[in-house]
Amino acid sequence: MSDATTNAGTAIPATLPLRNDLIGEEPYGAPQLDVPVCLNVNENPYAPDPAVVETIAERVRRIAPTLNRYPDREHIELRRAFAAYLRRESGAGLGVEQVWGANGSNEIMLQIFQAFGGPGRIALGCDPTYSMYPEYARDTFTTWQVAHRNEDFTLNVERTLAAIEDVRPAIVLLTSPNNPTGTPLPMEDLERILAACETASVRGAGEGVHPVVVVDEAYIEFRNPGTPSAVTLIDAHPNLAVSRTMSKAFAFAGARVGYVAASRGIIDCLRIVRMPYHLSAVTQAAALAAFEHTDEQLGRVAHLRETRERTAAWLRTRTYRGRALEVADSASNFLMFGGHFEDRDRIFAAMLERGVLIRAVGPDGWLRVCMGTDEEMARFREALDEVLREAETGR
Amino acid sequence: MSDATTNAGTAIPATLPLRNDLIGEEPYGAPQLDVPVCLNVNENPYAPDPAVVETIAERVRRIAPTLNRYPDREHIELRRAFAAYLRRESGAGLGVEQVWGANGSNEIMLQIFQAFGGPGRIALGCDPTYSMYPEYARDTFTTWQVAHRNEDFTLNVERTLAAIEDVRPAIVLLTSPNNPTGTPLPMEDLERILAACETASVRGAGEGVHPVVVVDEAYIEFRNPGTPSAVTLIDAHPNLAVSRTMSKAFAFAGARVGYVAASRGIIDCLRIVRMPYHLSAVTQAAALAAFEHTDEQLGRVAHLRETRERTAAWLRTRTYRGRALEVADSASNFLMFGGHFEDRDRIFAAMLERGVLIRAVGPDGWLRVCMGTDEEMARFREALDEVLREAETGR
Repeated sequence: MSDATTNAGTAIPATLPLRNDLIGEEPYGAPQLDVPVCLNVNENPYAPDPAVVETIAERVRRIAPTLNRYPDREHIELRRAFAAYLRRESGAGLGVEQVWGANGSNEIMLQIFQAFGGPGRIALGCDPTYSMYPEYARDTFTTWQVAHRNEDFTLNVERTLAAIEDVRPAIVLLTSPNNPTGTPLPMEDLERILAACETASVRGAGEGVHPVVVVDEAYIEFRNPGTPSAVTLIDAHPNLAVSRTMSKAFAFAGARVGYVAASRGIIDCLRIVRMPYHLSAVTQAAALAAFEHTDEQLGRVAHLRETRERTAAWLRTRTYRGRALEVADSASNFLMFGGHFEDRDRIFAAMLERGVLIRAVGPDGWLRVCMGTDEEMARFREALDEVLREAETGR
Repeated sequence: MSDATTNAGTAIPATLPLRNDLIGEEPYGAPQLDVPVCLNVNENPYAPDPAVVETIAERVRRIAPTLNRYPDREHIELRRAFAAYLRRESGAGLGVEQVWGANGSNEIMLQIFQAFGGPGRIALGCDPTYSMYPEYARDTFTTWQVAHRNEDFTLNVERTLAAIEDVRPAIVLLTSPNNPTGTPLPMEDLERILAACETASVRGAGEGVHPVVVVDEAYIEFRNPGTPSAVTLIDAHPNLAVSRTMSKAFAFAGARVGYVAASRGIIDCLRIVRMPYHLSAVTQAAALAAFEHTDEQLGRVAHLRETRERTAAWLRTRTYRGRALEVADSASNFLMFGGHFEDRDRIFAAMLERGVLIRAVGPDGWLRVCMGTDEEMARFREALDEVLREAETGR
């Protein structure tokens, strides 16, 4: 994956009519480096089993003779699989018209912003949160506003409700669990926000129009067992959309399959802005193959949850310049840790020198690490101990 | 592919904050119907050979064990394949930094509009032309303007040059050959427009900024042998982007692979607005497999070109209400015919009743048919003769 042009900067002559607000911007994304231990983009470290690989190849072989034809634009069979999965995973009984897929949940999110955002419209998020959200807003000319979270990264519900009243967003974007902090979103907090949005008005829209509440559940499968998902609220809340992905717990990041569960009305809005035939027949076949092996694909989720708990406990025993590391409570497959790193980029670089790629993201003073295999986590701990020791002695 | 929800209309409650300018819109796309003879969406009717199917399945099997990881965001290997193909197909010597792929050429086009369009920016097309172009503009808040073609559907160069001067577009969108008319774009016309754009100014941009000229070559492989492609002009024209697709001549519509050839500066602009990891590892593998079999995939192009010539000649011998059918000159795999159908929707429906799906698109009075297999074309001719006979007798 490493190549001269991968991660290359940009070279844009001033004669090109690049949008004025994009001048000086760089492509979004973590560096794709050829490093022994990659703990930077919250992937599931466990590769698909040979049986899954076989089913994927077989499903693709079966549809390959039809590849001269366009795919099913409405991807009905795959939508049935999304609905079946959500029933199994979260107990939600949704119809095919209440689910919708795209090339990764970032295409889902782009479609949401294309349908409900735009000039004069506002999207509200609760920061610190996922760093792509402002990019979806930028790419659709939507104004991005934030209500700050509490110091412990939990949602500040009062502040969020006040912001909904004040800025009158078209889109309220919550993240459950949050990225990069890992913070879970309690259902009672979500329900208070849903209730407020059901009477709130929207800047740039007519009377009787209310905000769409989007819950980004990219990492929800890593939550503690017994915790409900927002998808169970869809039938009661026509303005609720819950975004999901096969990239994380489902160990399918390379296939780029995201989906959303929502009322039929919301899905119909996305159908207006989607590119025709956005989801290839090959992607549909690969995703259907993976869903045939849901047990195997999710097989390591419990272990990754345990890894998170063990790693959080271990990190809390470590010190940086005489003070214990802080670790944000996480319901995800990653941990944000540190809290008082004076130069996190230096720690990041020192880890990278030792072959361990983590991520300098989120509030200053913090770093994020995602859960790898047991061996990868051992290398992470070893490298971090060396780096912290060096920082202690003030190299 | 037929299903209760496929092609379903929309049911959008007024409480949802759908963008005001999208209210009342319907999802774009031709009906996906279960019909014996589908000649409506300009697909290549010839399925991939068994050897191609095998390579696709094998390539996918090879990458499937890595699907828990994100794909190569810069899709370097595939970009090398695009460059190699363009060298072979059009004699253009382009580097990997001068080509870029996406999920179909409509995602390419969306990225172009996202990078160079937006509020206050204008895109100029030459109508009648591809009906998705105004949708790209709508989805990116770009103003869509047109310079009308001549009566024979050739580009009216003078009128187009005047419009460039007058409306100061950020994007000039040409189509070679044009859709739905099939009209080729002579290189001398393109070069006059390129020359004008190299000094033209852009509304909403600073001094010294010039329009991007986009040539949509979705159907270019069907041109008459010996005709050059716009990709050969890229090194000389930093503001030129040429969009291509594997969907048509390459018989790979189901895999959704489009690409663009342009200066590195233009590609870098697209890299800013692309979704991270927009192109899945499975798509990259499938496309690389198809490129291994370029000869087989393109094997029927010459025959489809002959089919077009024979079908055009045959259509010109037919009459509708006493007048010979008109057929627009086509360098593509489809023909626009009729010209004086008084109720084209009725002819379309009468063809559909006979199991032949064509397309009611383009200027009123015309219909479009794409080239199928010999057997499909025989059924098309048979059905059309019946329908024209009925129209003659004024059923």
